[in-house]
Amino acid sequence: MKNKKLTIIAHGGAGGINYPARRKSGLVKAVHAGYDILKQGGSSLDAVTKATTILEDTTVFNAGTGSYLNLLGMVEMDASIMTSELKFGAVAAITEVKNPIKVARLVMERTDHLLLCGEGANKFARLMGFDSYNPETREKRRLWQRRRKRLKNRYFPKLEELAGIYGTIGVVAIDKNGLISAANSTGGMNMNLPGRVGDTPIIGAGIYANKNGAVTATGHGEEIMRNLLCFRAVKLMARYPASLAGKKVIEYATRQGCRCGLIGINKTGAVLCVNNTKAMSWCYIKDGRLSSFP
Amino acid sequence: MKNKKLTIIAHGGAGGINYPARRKSGLVKAVHAGYDILKQGGSSLDAVTKATTILEDTTVFNAGTGSYLNLLGMVEMDASIMTSELKFGAVAAITEVKNPIKVARLVMERTDHLLLCGEGANKFARLMGFDSYNPETREKRRLWQRRRKRLKNRYFPKLEELAGIYGTIGVVAIDKNGLISAANSTGGMNMNLPGRVGDTPIIGAGIYANKNGAVTATGHGEEIMRNLLCFRAVKLMARYPASLAGKKVIEYATRQGCRCGLIGINKTGAVLCVNNTKAMSWCYIKDGRLSSFP
Repeated sequence: MKNKKLTIIAHGGAGGINYPARRKSGLVKAVHAGYDILKQGGSSLDAVTKATTILEDTTVFNAGTGSYLNLLGMVEMDASIMTSELKFGAVAAITEVKNPIKVARLVMERTDHLLLCGEGANKFARLMGFDSYNPETREKRRLWQRRRKRLKNRYFPKLEELAGIYGTIGVVAIDKNGLISAANSTGGMNMNLPGRVGDTPIIGAGIYANKNGAVTATGHGEEIMRNLLCFRAVKLMARYPASLAGKKVIEYATRQGCRCGLIGINKTGAVLCVNNTKAMSWCYIKDGRLSSFP
Repeated sequence: MKNKKLTIIAHGGAGGINYPARRKSGLVKAVHAGYDILKQGGSSLDAVTKATTILEDTTVFNAGTGSYLNLLGMVEMDASIMTSELKFGAVAAITEVKNPIKVARLVMERTDHLLLCGEGANKFARLMGFDSYNPETREKRRLWQRRRKRLKNRYFPKLEELAGIYGTIGVVAIDKNGLISAANSTGGMNMNLPGRVGDTPIIGAGIYANKNGAVTATGHGEEIMRNLLCFRAVKLMARYPASLAGKKVIEYATRQGCRCGLIGINKTGAVLCVNNTKAMSWCYIKDGRLSSFP
Protein backbone atom coordinates (compact mmCIF):
# COMPACT_ATOMS: atom_id res chain seq x y z
CA MET A 1 0.00 0.00 0.00
CA LYS A 2 1.44 3.33 -1.07
CA ASN A 3 -0.97 5.34 1.03
CA LYS A 4 -1.93 4.19 4.50
CA LYS A 5 -4.01 7.25 5.24
CA LEU A 6 -7.34 5.98 3.99
CA THR A 7 -9.80 8.78 4.68
CA ILE A 8 -13.40 9.55 3.72
CA ILE A 9 -15.50 12.59 4.60
CA ALA A 10 -19.12 13.44 3.81
CA HIS A 11 -21.41 16.37 4.49
CA GLY A 12 -25.20 16.66 4.52
CA GLY A 13 -25.61 20.35 3.71
CA ALA A 14 -24.81 23.62 5.46
CA GLY A 15 -28.36 24.96 5.69
CA GLY A 16 -28.87 24.12 9.33
CA ILE A 17 -29.64 20.78 10.93
CA ASN A 18 -33.24 19.71 11.11
CA TYR A 19 -33.79 16.03 11.91
CA PRO A 20 -30.28 15.68 13.41
CA ALA A 21 -30.62 11.97 14.20
CA ARG A 22 -31.75 11.08 10.66
CA ARG A 23 -28.96 13.18 9.20
CA LYS A 24 -26.31 11.64 11.40
CA SER A 25 -27.37 8.07 10.73
CA GLY A 26 -27.39 8.71 6.97
CA LEU A 27 -23.92 10.24 7.03
CA VAL A 28 -22.49 7.49 9.26
CA LYS A 29 -23.94 4.78 7.01
CA ALA A 30 -22.53 6.49 3.91
CA VAL A 31 -18.98 6.97 5.17
CA HIS A 32 -18.89 3.43 6.58
CA ALA A 33 -19.91 2.00 3.23
CA GLY A 34 -17.30 4.11 1.46
CA TYR A 35 -14.60 3.29 4.00
CA ASP A 36 -15.28 -0.43 3.62
CA ILE A 37 -14.50 -0.10 -0.08
CA LEU A 38 -11.25 1.75 0.70
CA LYS A 39 -10.21 -0.87 3.29
CA GLN A 40 -10.78 -3.66 0.80
CA GLY A 41 -8.37 -1.93 -1.58
CA GLY A 42 -11.08 -0.31 -3.70
CA SER A 43 -10.72 3.05 -5.43
CA SER A 44 -11.79 6.38 -3.97
CA LEU A 45 -13.94 6.75 -7.09
CA ASP A 46 -15.98 3.70 -6.07
CA ALA A 47 -16.03 4.84 -2.43
CA VAL A 48 -17.45 8.30 -3.15
CA THR A 49 -19.92 6.92 -5.69
CA LYS A 50 -21.24 4.39 -3.15
CA ALA A 51 -21.42 6.91 -0.28
CA THR A 52 -23.12 9.52 -2.48
CA THR A 53 -25.67 6.95 -3.66
CA ILE A 54 -26.55 6.19 -0.02
CA LEU A 55 -27.00 9.90 0.75
CA GLU A 56 -29.12 10.33 -2.39
CA ASP A 57 -31.35 7.48 -1.18
CA THR A 58 -31.68 8.95 2.35
CA THR A 59 -34.75 11.15 2.12
CA VAL A 60 -33.74 13.68 4.79
CA PHE A 61 -31.10 15.12 2.46
CA ASN A 62 -31.76 17.42 -0.48
CA ALA A 63 -30.40 15.06 -3.15
CA GLY A 64 -31.85 12.17 -5.11
CA THR A 65 -35.00 10.89 -3.41
CA GLY A 66 -36.19 13.71 -1.16
CA SER A 67 -34.87 16.55 -3.30
CA TYR A 68 -36.49 19.97 -2.93
CA LEU A 69 -39.07 20.90 -5.57
CA ASN A 70 -38.56 23.86 -7.86
CA LEU A 71 -40.92 26.78 -8.34
CA LEU A 72 -43.17 24.73 -10.62
CA GLY A 73 -43.22 21.80 -8.19
CA MET A 74 -40.78 19.59 -10.08
CA VAL A 75 -37.63 17.89 -8.90
CA GLU A 76 -34.53 18.72 -10.95
CA MET A 77 -31.19 17.39 -9.75
CA ASP A 78 -27.50 18.20 -10.29
CA ALA A 79 -24.51 15.97 -9.54
CA SER A 80 -20.83 15.73 -10.38
CA ILE A 81 -17.74 13.65 -9.75
CA MET A 82 -14.03 14.46 -10.12
CA THR A 83 -10.69 12.79 -9.43
CA SER A 84 -7.21 14.06 -8.65
CA GLU A 85 -6.31 12.97 -12.22
CA LEU A 86 -8.66 15.74 -13.49
CA LYS A 87 -11.32 13.33 -14.71
CA PHE A 88 -14.74 14.94 -14.45
CA GLY A 89 -18.37 14.18 -15.23
CA ALA A 90 -21.60 15.94 -14.33
CA VAL A 91 -25.34 16.18 -14.93
CA ALA A 92 -27.56 19.24 -14.44
CA ALA A 93 -31.34 19.53 -14.16
CA ILE A 94 -31.83 15.80 -14.61
CA THR A 95 -35.33 14.79 -13.54
CA GLU A 96 -36.10 11.11 -13.81
CA VAL A 97 -33.38 9.02 -12.23
CA LYS A 98 -32.83 7.59 -8.76
CA ASN A 99 -29.11 8.31 -8.53
CA PRO A 100 -27.82 11.30 -10.50
CA ILE A 101 -24.26 10.59 -9.31
CA LYS A 102 -24.21 7.29 -11.22
CA VAL A 103 -25.20 9.14 -14.40
CA ALA A 104 -22.53 11.79 -13.77
CA ARG A 105 -19.93 9.04 -13.44
CA LEU A 106 -21.01 7.52 -16.77
CA VAL A 107 -20.77 10.94 -18.45
CA MET A 108 -17.14 10.89 -17.26
CA GLU A 109 -16.42 7.31 -18.27
CA ARG A 110 -18.45 6.77 -21.42
CA THR A 111 -18.59 10.07 -23.29
CA ASP A 112 -16.23 12.71 -24.64
CA HIS A 113 -18.26 15.32 -22.76
CA LEU A 114 -18.08 16.61 -19.18
CA LEU A 115 -21.59 17.91 -18.56
CA LEU A 116 -25.03 16.91 -19.82
CA CYS A 117 -28.16 18.80 -18.83
CA GLY A 118 -31.95 18.60 -18.90
CA GLU A 119 -33.73 16.28 -21.30
CA GLY A 120 -30.40 15.29 -22.87
CA ALA A 121 -29.18 14.05 -19.48
CA ASN A 122 -32.40 12.04 -19.06
CA LYS A 123 -32.01 10.55 -22.55
CA PHE A 124 -28.42 9.59 -21.78
CA ALA A 125 -29.53 7.90 -18.54
CA ARG A 126 -32.16 5.87 -20.45
CA LEU A 127 -29.54 4.92 -23.05
CA MET A 128 -27.27 3.71 -20.22
CA GLY A 129 -30.07 1.51 -18.87
CA PHE A 130 -31.32 3.57 -15.91
CA ASP A 131 -35.01 3.10 -15.16
CA SER A 132 -37.27 6.11 -15.05
CA TYR A 133 -37.79 7.09 -11.41
CA ASN A 134 -39.69 9.81 -9.58
CA PRO A 135 -37.51 11.19 -6.73
CA GLU A 136 -40.34 13.24 -5.15
CA THR A 137 -41.31 12.56 -1.53
CA ARG A 138 -44.57 13.51 0.22
CA GLU A 139 -42.57 15.42 2.84
CA LYS A 140 -40.94 17.72 0.25
CA ARG A 141 -44.23 18.10 -1.65
CA ARG A 142 -45.92 19.38 1.54
CA LEU A 143 -43.00 21.76 2.16
CA TRP A 144 -43.42 23.03 -1.41
CA GLN A 145 -47.17 23.55 -0.94
CA ARG A 146 -46.63 25.59 2.23
CA ARG A 147 -43.95 27.73 0.61
CA ARG A 148 -45.93 28.22 -2.58
CA LYS A 149 -48.87 29.52 -0.56
CA ARG A 150 -46.64 31.96 1.28
CA LEU A 151 -45.36 33.33 -2.05
CA LYS A 152 -48.95 34.01 -3.12
CA ASN A 153 -48.87 35.00 -6.74
CA ARG A 154 -45.47 36.60 -6.88
CA TYR A 155 -43.29 35.37 -9.66
CA PHE A 156 -40.02 34.68 -7.90
CA PRO A 157 -39.09 34.66 -4.20
CA LYS A 158 -36.15 36.62 -2.86
CA LEU A 159 -33.50 34.42 -1.33
CA GLU A 160 -33.86 35.98 2.10
CA GLU A 161 -37.46 34.84 2.36
CA LEU A 162 -36.61 31.19 2.29
CA ALA A 163 -35.08 29.41 5.27
CA GLY A 164 -33.14 26.22 4.73
CA ILE A 165 -32.74 26.79 1.04
CA TYR A 166 -29.24 25.34 1.03
CA GLY A 167 -28.89 21.64 0.68
CA THR A 168 -26.36 19.51 -1.08
CA ILE A 169 -24.56 16.38 -0.13
CA GLY A 170 -20.92 15.73 -0.88
CA VAL A 171 -18.25 13.11 -0.30
CA VAL A 172 -14.44 13.14 -0.66
CA ALA A 173 -12.10 10.15 -0.22
CA ILE A 174 -8.47 9.10 -0.71
CA ASP A 175 -7.56 5.49 -1.48
CA LYS A 176 -4.49 3.28 -1.02
CA ASN A 177 -2.99 4.51 -4.29
CA GLY A 178 -3.35 8.12 -3.26
CA LEU A 179 -6.15 8.79 -5.77
CA ILE A 180 -8.43 11.48 -4.35
CA SER A 181 -12.04 11.68 -5.56
CA ALA A 182 -14.91 14.04 -4.82
CA ALA A 183 -18.62 13.67 -5.58
CA ASN A 184 -21.71 15.71 -4.86
CA SER A 185 -25.43 15.72 -5.56
CA THR A 186 -28.33 18.09 -4.96
CA GLY A 187 -31.97 18.82 -5.64
CA GLY A 188 -31.00 22.45 -6.07
CA MET A 189 -32.32 25.42 -4.21
CA ASN A 190 -35.78 25.20 -2.72
CA MET A 191 -38.24 26.93 -5.11
CA ASN A 192 -35.60 27.75 -7.69
CA LEU A 193 -36.59 28.67 -11.22
CA PRO A 194 -36.94 25.62 -13.49
CA GLY A 195 -33.65 24.86 -15.21
CA ARG A 196 -31.56 26.65 -12.60
CA VAL A 197 -28.07 25.20 -12.34
CA GLY A 198 -26.15 25.84 -9.14
CA ASP A 199 -22.52 25.23 -8.21
CA THR A 200 -22.84 21.45 -7.75
CA PRO A 201 -22.19 20.32 -11.35
CA ILE A 202 -19.79 23.17 -12.18
CA ILE A 203 -16.10 22.31 -12.18
CA GLY A 204 -14.10 24.72 -10.02
CA ALA A 205 -17.28 26.01 -8.35
CA GLY A 206 -18.93 23.26 -6.27
CA ILE A 207 -16.22 20.67 -6.87
CA TYR A 208 -12.57 20.52 -7.82
CA ALA A 209 -9.70 18.06 -7.55
CA ASN A 210 -6.09 17.82 -8.62
CA LYS A 211 -2.96 16.13 -7.32
CA ASN A 212 -2.94 18.38 -4.26
CA GLY A 213 -6.40 17.48 -3.02
CA ALA A 214 -10.13 17.46 -3.65
CA VAL A 215 -12.89 19.67 -2.29
CA THR A 216 -16.65 19.95 -2.60
CA ALA A 217 -18.89 22.78 -1.41
CA THR A 218 -22.43 23.37 -0.23
CA GLY A 219 -24.36 26.56 0.49
CA HIS A 220 -25.47 29.45 -1.66
CA GLY A 221 -24.67 27.96 -5.07
CA GLU A 222 -24.70 31.20 -7.05
CA GLU A 223 -22.06 32.80 -4.82
CA ILE A 224 -19.96 29.62 -4.67
CA MET A 225 -20.01 29.66 -8.47
CA ARG A 226 -19.24 33.36 -8.82
CA ASN A 227 -16.21 32.90 -6.53
CA LEU A 228 -15.01 29.56 -7.99
CA LEU A 229 -14.67 28.47 -4.40
CA CYS A 230 -13.50 24.86 -4.77
CA PHE A 231 -10.81 25.79 -7.28
CA ARG A 232 -9.51 28.34 -4.77
CA ALA A 233 -9.64 25.83 -1.92
CA VAL A 234 -7.63 23.21 -3.81
CA LYS A 235 -5.11 25.86 -4.83
CA LEU A 236 -4.68 26.80 -1.16
CA MET A 237 -4.19 23.10 -0.33
CA ALA A 238 -1.07 23.13 -2.50
CA ARG A 239 0.51 25.78 -0.26
CA TYR A 240 -0.92 25.21 3.21
CA PRO A 241 -1.88 22.37 5.55
CA ALA A 242 -5.52 21.32 5.02
CA SER A 243 -6.82 23.04 8.15
CA LEU A 244 -5.13 26.35 7.30
CA ALA A 245 -6.31 26.09 3.68
CA GLY A 246 -9.82 25.62 5.06
CA LYS A 247 -9.48 28.63 7.32
CA LYS A 248 -8.26 30.81 4.46
CA VAL A 249 -10.94 29.75 1.99
CA ILE A 250 -13.80 30.22 4.45
CA GLU A 251 -12.44 33.66 5.43
CA TYR A 252 -12.35 34.53 1.75
CA ALA A 253 -15.92 33.28 1.28
CA THR A 254 -17.13 35.32 4.26
CA ARG A 255 -15.48 38.46 2.87
CA GLN A 256 -17.29 37.86 -0.43
CA GLY A 257 -20.64 37.43 1.33
CA CYS A 258 -20.80 33.78 0.30
CA ARG A 259 -22.61 31.57 2.82
CA CYS A 260 -21.27 28.07 2.45
CA GLY A 261 -19.46 25.04 3.78
CA LEU A 262 -16.63 22.99 2.29
CA ILE A 263 -15.17 19.54 2.88
CA GLY A 264 -11.98 18.15 1.40
CA ILE A 265 -8.97 15.90 1.69
CA ASN A 266 -5.41 16.76 0.69
CA LYS A 267 -2.75 14.43 -0.70
CA THR A 268 -1.54 13.46 2.78
CA GLY A 269 -5.05 12.38 3.79
CA ALA A 270 -5.63 15.43 6.02
CA VAL A 271 -9.17 16.71 6.28
CA LEU A 272 -10.63 20.15 5.48
CA CYS A 273 -14.07 20.84 7.02
CA VAL A 274 -15.29 24.42 7.37
CA ASN A 275 -18.48 26.46 7.14
CA ASN A 276 -19.69 29.99 7.83
CA THR A 277 -23.39 29.13 8.09
CA LYS A 278 -25.35 28.33 11.24
CA ALA A 279 -24.48 24.66 11.02
CA MET A 280 -23.20 22.01 8.61
CA SER A 281 -23.66 18.30 9.21
CA TRP A 282 -20.58 16.19 8.44
CA CYS A 283 -18.94 12.88 9.23
CA TYR A 284 -15.52 11.40 8.49
CA ILE A 285 -13.41 8.33 9.12
CA LYS A 286 -9.67 8.83 9.37
CA ASP A 287 -7.11 6.40 10.84
CA GLY A 288 -10.06 4.07 11.38
CA ARG A 289 -11.82 6.51 13.73
CA LEU A 290 -15.17 8.15 13.10
CA SER A 291 -15.91 11.80 13.92
CA SER A 292 -19.18 13.56 13.20
CA PHE A 293 -21.39 16.58 13.72
CA PRO A 294 -23.99 16.59 15.05
CA MET B 1 -14.02 60.40 -19.46
CA LYS B 2 -12.04 58.32 -17.02
CA ASN B 3 -10.93 55.84 -19.62
CA LYS B 4 -9.93 56.97 -23.09
CA LYS B 5 -8.87 53.53 -24.20
CA LEU B 6 -12.18 52.39 -25.66
CA THR B 7 -11.51 48.94 -27.08
CA ILE B 8 -13.61 46.11 -28.45
CA ILE B 9 -12.51 42.71 -29.73
CA ALA B 10 -14.47 39.81 -31.20
CA HIS B 11 -13.63 36.34 -32.49
CA GLY B 12 -15.50 34.03 -34.82
CA GLY B 13 -14.16 30.67 -33.62
CA ALA B 14 -10.81 28.88 -33.69
CA GLY B 15 -11.85 25.87 -35.76
CA GLY B 16 -10.32 27.07 -39.00
CA ILE B 17 -11.59 29.66 -41.44
CA ASN B 18 -14.04 28.54 -44.09
CA TYR B 19 -15.88 31.35 -45.88
CA PRO B 20 -13.23 33.94 -44.85
CA ALA B 21 -15.00 36.88 -46.51
CA ARG B 22 -18.34 36.16 -44.79
CA ARG B 23 -16.57 35.73 -41.46
CA LYS B 24 -14.61 38.92 -41.81
CA SER B 25 -17.60 41.03 -42.80
CA GLY B 26 -19.61 39.67 -39.84
CA LEU B 27 -16.83 40.40 -37.36
CA VAL B 28 -16.21 43.89 -38.76
CA LYS B 29 -19.92 44.73 -38.62
CA ALA B 30 -20.14 43.46 -35.03
CA VAL B 31 -17.17 45.35 -33.63
CA HIS B 32 -18.21 48.54 -35.45
CA ALA B 33 -21.67 48.35 -33.90
CA GLY B 34 -20.19 47.73 -30.45
CA TYR B 35 -17.61 50.46 -30.85
CA ASP B 36 -20.28 52.97 -31.86
CA ILE B 37 -22.00 52.31 -28.51
CA LEU B 38 -18.72 52.82 -26.64
CA LYS B 39 -17.99 56.08 -28.52
CA GLN B 40 -21.43 57.43 -27.65
CA GLY B 41 -20.63 56.85 -23.98
CA GLY B 42 -22.55 53.57 -23.71
CA SER B 43 -21.54 50.70 -21.46
CA SER B 44 -19.35 47.79 -22.44
CA LEU B 45 -22.25 45.56 -21.38
CA ASP B 46 -24.42 47.08 -24.12
CA ALA B 47 -21.53 46.98 -26.60
CA VAL B 48 -20.81 43.27 -26.16
CA THR B 49 -24.52 42.41 -26.13
CA LYS B 50 -25.05 44.23 -29.44
CA ALA B 51 -21.94 42.79 -31.10
CA THR B 52 -22.78 39.26 -29.93
CA THR B 53 -26.34 39.61 -31.24
CA ILE B 54 -24.96 40.53 -34.68
CA LEU B 55 -22.64 37.52 -34.69
CA GLU B 56 -25.52 35.26 -33.58
CA ASP B 57 -27.56 36.56 -36.53
CA THR B 58 -24.71 36.01 -39.02
CA THR B 59 -25.27 32.48 -40.29
CA VAL B 60 -21.65 31.64 -41.06
CA PHE B 61 -20.87 31.45 -37.34
CA ASN B 62 -21.78 28.58 -35.03
CA ALA B 63 -24.02 30.61 -32.72
CA GLY B 64 -27.68 31.64 -32.82
CA THR B 65 -29.03 31.29 -36.37
CA GLY B 66 -26.68 28.90 -38.16
CA SER B 67 -25.72 26.88 -35.08
CA TYR B 68 -24.46 23.34 -35.57
CA LEU B 69 -26.97 20.55 -35.01
CA ASN B 70 -26.46 17.96 -32.31
CA LEU B 71 -26.41 14.19 -32.78
CA LEU B 72 -30.21 14.06 -32.95
CA GLY B 73 -30.37 16.91 -35.46
CA MET B 74 -31.47 19.61 -33.02
CA VAL B 75 -29.97 23.02 -32.32
CA GLU B 76 -29.11 23.62 -28.64
CA MET B 77 -27.31 26.83 -27.77
CA ASP B 78 -25.18 28.13 -24.87
CA ALA B 79 -24.34 31.76 -24.07
CA SER B 80 -23.00 33.82 -21.19
CA ILE B 81 -22.11 37.36 -20.22
CA MET B 82 -19.88 38.69 -17.43
CA THR B 83 -18.57 42.06 -16.24
CA SER B 84 -15.50 43.17 -14.33
CA GLU B 85 -17.86 43.73 -11.36
CA LEU B 86 -18.38 39.93 -11.24
CA LYS B 87 -21.92 40.07 -12.55
CA PHE B 88 -22.70 36.93 -14.52
CA GLY B 89 -25.59 35.32 -16.39
CA ALA B 90 -25.79 32.31 -18.68
CA VAL B 91 -28.06 29.89 -20.53
CA ALA B 92 -27.23 26.33 -21.56
CA ALA B 93 -28.92 24.02 -24.08
CA ILE B 94 -31.57 26.62 -24.91
CA THR B 95 -33.37 25.70 -28.14
CA GLU B 96 -36.01 28.14 -29.26
CA VAL B 97 -34.72 31.70 -29.21
CA LYS B 98 -33.06 33.92 -31.77
CA ASN B 99 -30.49 35.49 -29.45
CA PRO B 100 -29.36 33.39 -26.50
CA ILE B 101 -27.07 36.22 -25.32
CA LYS B 102 -30.10 38.43 -24.62
CA VAL B 103 -31.60 35.70 -22.44
CA ALA B 104 -28.27 35.22 -20.61
CA ARG B 105 -28.21 38.94 -19.87
CA LEU B 106 -31.73 38.79 -18.42
CA VAL B 107 -30.74 35.83 -16.22
CA MET B 108 -28.05 38.16 -14.86
CA GLU B 109 -30.30 41.20 -14.48
CA ARG B 110 -33.67 39.75 -13.52
CA THR B 111 -33.05 36.63 -11.44
CA ASP B 112 -31.14 35.54 -8.35
CA HIS B 113 -29.61 32.76 -10.44
CA LEU B 114 -26.56 32.66 -12.70
CA LEU B 115 -27.32 29.79 -15.07
CA LEU B 116 -30.54 28.37 -16.51
CA CYS B 117 -30.55 25.32 -18.78
CA GLY B 118 -32.77 23.35 -21.15
CA GLU B 119 -36.53 23.65 -20.99
CA GLY B 120 -36.25 25.94 -17.95
CA ALA B 121 -34.18 28.39 -20.01
CA ASN B 122 -36.79 28.28 -22.80
CA LYS B 123 -39.60 28.89 -20.29
CA PHE B 124 -37.71 31.85 -18.83
CA ALA B 125 -37.24 33.30 -22.33
CA ARG B 126 -40.98 33.00 -23.02
CA LEU B 127 -41.71 34.64 -19.66
CA MET B 128 -39.43 37.53 -20.64
CA GLY B 129 -41.29 38.00 -23.91
CA PHE B 130 -38.99 36.34 -26.42
CA ASP B 131 -40.77 34.81 -29.41
CA SER B 132 -40.23 31.17 -30.20
CA TYR B 133 -37.67 30.94 -33.01
CA ASN B 134 -36.04 28.13 -34.94
CA PRO B 135 -32.30 28.88 -35.40
CA GLU B 136 -31.71 26.05 -37.88
CA THR B 137 -30.33 26.86 -41.36
CA ARG B 138 -30.48 24.67 -44.47
CA GLU B 139 -26.68 24.86 -44.74
CA LYS B 140 -26.12 23.35 -41.28
CA ARG B 141 -28.89 20.77 -41.82
CA ARG B 142 -27.09 19.54 -44.95
CA LEU B 143 -23.78 19.41 -43.04
CA TRP B 144 -25.53 17.36 -40.35
CA GLN B 145 -26.97 14.95 -42.92
CA ARG B 146 -23.54 14.36 -44.50
CA ARG B 147 -21.93 13.77 -41.11
CA ARG B 148 -24.73 11.53 -39.87
CA LYS B 149 -24.30 9.33 -42.93
CA ARG B 150 -20.58 9.05 -42.32
CA LEU B 151 -21.19 7.90 -38.73
CA LYS B 152 -23.44 5.12 -40.07
CA ASN B 153 -25.09 3.51 -37.10
CA ARG B 154 -22.46 4.15 -34.49
CA TYR B 155 -23.75 5.75 -31.35
CA PHE B 156 -21.26 8.51 -30.76
CA PRO B 157 -18.44 9.90 -32.92
CA LYS B 158 -14.90 10.28 -31.64
CA LEU B 159 -13.77 13.87 -31.61
CA GLU B 160 -10.92 13.22 -34.03
CA GLU B 161 -13.35 12.16 -36.75
CA LEU B 162 -14.98 15.53 -37.01
CA ALA B 163 -13.30 18.46 -38.67
CA GLY B 164 -14.31 21.97 -37.79
CA ILE B 165 -16.13 20.93 -34.65
CA TYR B 166 -15.06 24.02 -32.79
CA GLY B 167 -17.13 27.09 -33.13
CA THR B 168 -18.06 29.82 -30.71
CA ILE B 169 -18.25 33.52 -31.00
CA GLY B 170 -17.10 35.92 -28.33
CA VAL B 171 -16.76 39.64 -27.69
CA VAL B 172 -14.91 41.67 -25.03
CA ALA B 173 -15.04 45.45 -24.57
CA ILE B 174 -13.97 48.21 -22.17
CA ASP B 175 -15.98 51.43 -21.85
CA LYS B 176 -15.28 55.02 -20.78
CA ASN B 177 -15.85 54.14 -17.11
CA GLY B 178 -13.36 51.29 -17.28
CA LEU B 179 -16.07 48.62 -17.01
CA ILE B 180 -14.92 45.53 -18.89
CA SER B 181 -17.51 43.05 -20.20
CA ALA B 182 -17.27 39.74 -22.00
CA ALA B 183 -19.95 37.78 -23.86
CA ASN B 184 -20.03 34.59 -25.86
CA SER B 185 -22.48 32.34 -27.67
CA THR B 186 -22.35 28.97 -29.38
CA GLY B 187 -24.34 26.19 -31.00
CA GLY B 188 -22.03 23.75 -29.25
CA MET B 189 -19.94 21.05 -30.78
CA ASN B 190 -21.00 19.62 -34.11
CA MET B 191 -22.87 16.34 -33.48
CA ASN B 192 -22.60 16.57 -29.70
CA LEU B 193 -24.82 14.48 -27.46
CA PRO B 194 -28.14 16.20 -26.70
CA GLY B 195 -27.87 18.27 -23.53
CA ARG B 196 -24.09 18.60 -23.77
CA VAL B 197 -22.87 21.78 -22.11
CA GLY B 198 -19.46 23.06 -23.14
CA ASP B 199 -17.25 25.80 -21.69
CA THR B 200 -19.25 28.72 -23.10
CA PRO B 201 -21.79 29.19 -20.25
CA ILE B 202 -19.41 28.07 -17.49
CA ILE B 203 -17.89 30.83 -15.38
CA GLY B 204 -14.11 30.51 -15.18
CA ALA B 205 -14.07 28.09 -18.12
CA GLY B 206 -15.19 29.81 -21.35
CA ILE B 207 -15.55 33.25 -19.80
CA TYR B 208 -14.26 35.22 -16.83
CA ALA B 209 -13.92 38.84 -15.81
CA ASN B 210 -12.76 40.81 -12.81
CA LYS B 211 -11.22 44.23 -12.20
CA ASN B 212 -8.01 43.12 -13.94
CA GLY B 213 -9.62 42.18 -17.23
CA ALA B 214 -12.04 39.97 -19.11
CA VAL B 215 -11.44 36.98 -21.35
CA THR B 216 -13.51 34.57 -23.42
CA ALA B 217 -12.39 31.33 -25.04
CA THR B 218 -13.24 29.14 -28.01
CA GLY B 219 -12.04 25.70 -29.02
CA HIS B 220 -12.37 22.27 -27.47
CA GLY B 221 -14.91 23.13 -24.77
CA GLU B 222 -14.35 20.10 -22.57
CA GLU B 223 -10.63 20.80 -22.22
CA ILE B 224 -11.17 24.55 -21.73
CA MET B 225 -13.58 23.63 -18.92
CA ARG B 226 -11.30 21.04 -17.33
CA ASN B 227 -8.50 23.62 -17.25
CA LEU B 228 -10.62 26.63 -16.16
CA LEU B 229 -8.81 28.49 -18.88
CA CYS B 230 -10.42 31.94 -18.70
CA PHE B 231 -10.02 32.15 -14.92
CA ARG B 232 -6.31 31.40 -15.39
CA ALA B 233 -6.00 33.98 -18.18
CA VAL B 234 -7.57 36.77 -16.11
CA LYS B 235 -5.36 35.83 -13.17
CA LEU B 236 -2.30 36.16 -15.41
CA MET B 237 -3.59 39.56 -16.56
CA ALA B 238 -3.22 40.80 -12.97
CA ARG B 239 0.51 40.08 -13.07
CA TYR B 240 1.59 40.53 -16.67
CA PRO B 241 0.94 42.79 -19.65
CA ALA B 242 -1.94 41.47 -21.79
CA SER B 243 0.28 40.09 -24.54
CA LEU B 244 2.51 38.20 -22.09
CA ALA B 245 -0.54 36.90 -20.19
CA GLY B 246 -1.83 35.64 -23.53
CA LYS B 247 1.47 33.94 -24.33
CA LYS B 248 1.54 32.25 -20.92
CA VAL B 249 -2.05 31.01 -21.01
CA ILE B 250 -1.79 29.61 -24.53
CA GLU B 251 1.49 27.86 -23.64
CA TYR B 252 -0.27 26.37 -20.63
CA ALA B 253 -3.21 25.26 -22.80
CA THR B 254 -0.86 23.64 -25.31
CA ARG B 255 0.93 21.73 -22.53
CA GLN B 256 -2.47 20.46 -21.34
CA GLY B 257 -3.41 19.33 -24.85
CA CYS B 258 -6.20 21.90 -25.00
CA ARG B 259 -6.83 23.22 -28.51
CA CYS B 260 -8.29 26.67 -28.21
CA GLY B 261 -8.17 30.40 -28.76
CA LEU B 262 -8.72 33.28 -26.33
CA ILE B 263 -9.51 36.97 -26.65
CA GLY B 264 -9.49 39.53 -23.87
CA ILE B 265 -8.93 43.07 -22.72
CA ASN B 266 -7.15 44.16 -19.53
CA LYS B 267 -7.90 47.19 -17.39
CA THR B 268 -5.60 49.43 -19.43
CA GLY B 269 -7.48 48.55 -22.63
CA ALA B 270 -4.68 46.31 -23.94
CA VAL B 271 -5.71 43.35 -26.07
CA LEU B 272 -5.07 39.63 -25.61
CA CYS B 273 -5.57 37.51 -28.75
CA VAL B 274 -4.01 34.04 -28.96
CA ASN B 275 -4.73 30.58 -30.33
CA ASN B 276 -2.98 27.24 -30.77
CA THR B 277 -5.32 25.92 -33.49
CA LYS B 278 -4.86 26.14 -37.25
CA ALA B 279 -6.58 29.51 -37.38
CA MET B 280 -8.87 31.80 -35.38
CA SER B 281 -10.82 34.64 -36.97
CA TRP B 282 -10.82 37.86 -34.97
CA CYS B 283 -11.29 41.60 -35.27
CA TYR B 284 -10.72 44.52 -32.92
CA ILE B 285 -10.93 48.30 -32.76
CA LYS B 286 -8.47 50.05 -30.49
CA ASP B 287 -7.54 53.74 -30.55
CA GLY B 288 -10.09 54.07 -33.33
CA ARG B 289 -8.21 51.69 -35.63
CA LEU B 290 -9.49 48.35 -36.87
CA SER B 291 -7.32 45.23 -37.12
CA SER B 292 -8.56 41.82 -38.24
CA PHE B 293 -7.71 38.32 -39.31
CA PRO B 294 -8.31 37.14 -41.92
